[in-house]
Amino acid sequence: LTVLSPTELEAALRAIGAERYHNRHPFHRMLHSGGCTPDQVRAWALNRYYYQAQIPAKDSALMARLPTAELRRIWRQRIVDHDGDQANEGGIARWLRLTDALGLDRDYVISGEGLLPATRFAVDAYVNFVSTRPLTEAVASSLTEMFSADIIRDRVSGMLKHYDFVDSKALAYFESRLSDAPRDADFALAYVQEHALTEKEQEAALDALRFKCGILWTLLDACSYAYVSPGEPAPGAWRPGEHLVSSQR
Amino acid sequence: LTVLSPTELEAALRAIGAERYHNRHPFHRMLHSGGCTPDQVRAWALNRYYYQAQIPAKDSALMARLPTAELRRIWRQRIVDHDGDQANEGGIARWLRLTDALGLDRDYVISGEGLLPATRFAVDAYVNFVSTRPLTEAVASSLTEMFSADIIRDRVSGMLKHYDFVDSKALAYFESRLSDAPRDADFALAYVQEHALTEKEQEAALDALRFKCGILWTLLDACSYAYVSPGEPAPGAWRPGEHLVSSQR
Repeated sequence: LTVLSPTELEAALRAIGAERYHNRHPFHRMLHSGGCTPDQVRAWALNRYYYQAQIPAKDSALMARLPTAELRRIWRQRIVDHDGDQANEGGIARWLRLTDALGLDRDYVISGEGLLPATRFAVDAYVNFVSTRPLTEAVASSLTEMFSADIIRDRVSGMLKHYDFVDSKALAYFESRLSDAPRDADFALAYVQEHALTEKEQEAALDALRFKCGILWTLLDACSYAYVSPGEPAPGAWRPGEHLVSSQR
Repeated sequence: LTVLSPTELEAALRAIGAERYHNRHPFHRMLHSGGCTPDQVRAWALNRYYYQAQIPAKDSALMARLPTAELRRIWRQRIVDHDGDQANEGGIARWLRLTDALGLDRDYVISGEGLLPATRFAVDAYVNFVSTRPLTEAVASSLTEMFSADIIRDRVSGMLKHYDFVDSKALAYFESRLSDAPRDADFALAYVQEHALTEKEQEAALDALRFKCGILWTLLDACSYAYVSPGEPAPGAWRPGEHLVSSQR
């Protein structure tokens, strides 16, 4: 018998995080420890904005496939968290406070014009995955949230300590995620434990989490290649110093 | 009037190639000039195999949307070129002769297990684009073939000159592309010139080519970050020295 118990399945999911979650990426270590230039923090925030902005698309695609009002009500909270109830509320709006604080032109950030191509491909792959794979895999791909509390705590304290161009208001996004992410992860983990019952389903759920770790890792690979010395942004992508509001130029 | 004449549209497409085609990427210059280690050539060939292997999927998706037998007959030739008429024929088989010559385990190459995540996201984005965008844009995204003859000539002569582990048999793929690609590009260019008639359609066709240049560029960004010093392959991706057949270890 190679079917895992719920506890064993959780342990196998956590082992994937320990190997593949993006807290292990050199760029993240650099970001948290104060090793990034302002332009490198800008590049990261600009590219990561596209991920944030597409999360409600991802969650809407998943919600479209949930079979009951009860499940949809629970999943809907994720969309409320990111989109807010009115303008200037919610996770996307809070992320824009960070790019504002970094001096990036807000319209340019929202336009997506300056994204690295790999950012767009990776994020779109996530939305496609959730739209087309079996529901248990789609839910499992969200389980990077099991690992996010530690990285966010490191990020907030590291960024406040090391970068004088970042203050706690600019990091409001992360404060909200500290409470939202564990709540979301608990539900998703229980769902996967309840629905991935065969060896094949469990392996597919583990693969879904590996896939998702690859998304987050790719965003940092792309920022590293493009913006860490010597730095070679793809043609058309944002270049350091560009699209800053006048006070930051 | 900002609608371009057919000649102006071709010039605008060529200008995108001059700015964004992957012959301008540092990794390509390194590959052609003999600056790559055997493991770097392997990493490139392994990742690029996935692109090659998905080209017939891309062309099938496009062919599924062509309205006439005449158009489908013309486009079908691309699939014949890549898949061949029997086993061990066609472009995919020829690419495997290159990975064989580089000593990579063939089953491992075909499995896709060692791909960089960005490779999969980029190639899948290309198939999705061709499956879902207006037909003229789908056709326009193939127009990187307008620029491929020069790069292939450089590649073949550069690789034969600089790498003693590569011979002309291993490069058979590129010899075929020297005649096939211009034929395919001529047809696709004429199609786009005939069907992109408004300013909006022409801008969308130009964007489709920009998008495709981003695909090819991303493959090289990913190889560069993962395999050029210091080199940081994503967790799960191929690592130098792994999965070689015994004669090459």
